[in-house]
Amino acid sequence: MAQQERALKTRLLIVEAAGAVFDELGYDAATTTEIIARSGVTRGALYFHFPSKEAIADAVIASQDQFLVPPDHRVRLQATIDLTMSYARRLQHDSLLRGAVRLAVEQASYRKPDATPYVSSHEVVCRLLREAEANGELLPTADPEELTPLIVGAFTGIQVLSQAHNNRLDLLERVSALWKNLLPAIAVAGLLPHLDTSPEARPR
Amino acid sequence: MAQQERALKTRLLIVEAAGAVFDELGYDAATTTEIIARSGVTRGALYFHFPSKEAIADAVIASQDQFLVPPDHRVRLQATIDLTMSYARRLQHDSLLRGAVRLAVEQASYRKPDATPYVSSHEVVCRLLREAEANGELLPTADPEELTPLIVGAFTGIQVLSQAHNNRLDLLERVSALWKNLLPAIAVAGLLPHLDTSPEARPR
Repeated sequence: MAQQERALKTRLLIVEAAGAVFDELGYDAATTTEIIARSGVTRGALYFHFPSKEAIADAVIASQDQFLVPPDHRVRLQATIDLTMSYARRLQHDSLLRGAVRLAVEQASYRKPDATPYVSSHEVVCRLLREAEANGELLPTADPEELTPLIVGAFTGIQVLSQAHNNRLDLLERVSALWKNLLPAIAVAGLLPHLDTSPEARPR
Repeated sequence: MAQQERALKTRLLIVEAAGAVFDELGYDAATTTEIIARSGVTRGALYFHFPSKEAIADAVIASQDQFLVPPDHRVRLQATIDLTMSYARRLQHDSLLRGAVRLAVEQASYRKPDATPYVSSHEVVCRLLREAEANGELLPTADPEELTPLIVGAFTGIQVLSQAHNNRLDLLERVSALWKNLLPAIAVAGLLPHLDTSPEARPR
């Protein structure tokens, strides 16, 4: 058990160091040597857990899931907004998540473009929007199937531009503007004024 | 004069070949050797025009501007929609534009992230939205300064996801969904039903 715990801890050290390295250098320029140096593990330990740089990148991308836990707000549209805000806040401060997002956006470098890195976000947002629909929060013309890829895609590009402009300093304001301008097409009129899209942190 | 024309033609051959190479390989993996092979020019000619791979990448990014000519539709919101649709269509078919967009999205590989690749798109969209505002096409709450980075950012991410899912086959449908869900927050009610956001090509 102690040995298993140690192995899990080593794996986590590697994934966190790799996230930071991929965030800074991208997939092509990242090396296992750099990941080993940052994580403080031995090369043997790294290869025990991961047969290749690609396997490490897959683990970094999979680590996104921990940032995709939907808040339990009764209004499911508010929970969706809050999820994107907390994800944005983590992107500003967590180099593991930044590394995962960089790999997702630049995945053409490490494998043929495919949609795997976006599956979890898609599932979580789509489930929240279906719950919102079941609650009567959505306009009849609002379609969760159409809105989900739009929200995931728009968020992805908005954070690319925020990074390019000011290293994601204004990311929350940009996500707030996205919601402000999407919600009139999504939320029923009675709910609209009660949804909080402000970039400030809210008590949870 | 003939010599100058030849030089311009050579420069164009290099930029177009480089666009295709950056599109397929990304900045890090692209080599001047590959660009030379594809363009059919000599290494001497390449270095006559471009001192470095970075200089070629800058020229590929600058080539985007030719795809950012606003249509002359009287309704400026329609011109904005049409511009994004024709840009999306070019992205599907033009490897030079695809190379420019990949460099913009993955720019962290070739220089510190900066917003230069998005300046032209930002300027064109912002000018169109201001003209729409002056025409009385916008709701009083719609702010071109807020909408421009949102539209440019959302478009950027939507094409990243469309590429990941199906090599941009459904890009026009995704851009159409963006407009359908943004316009209720942007356009005055009287104009809204007259705006054409369908992904089909329209006569110009």
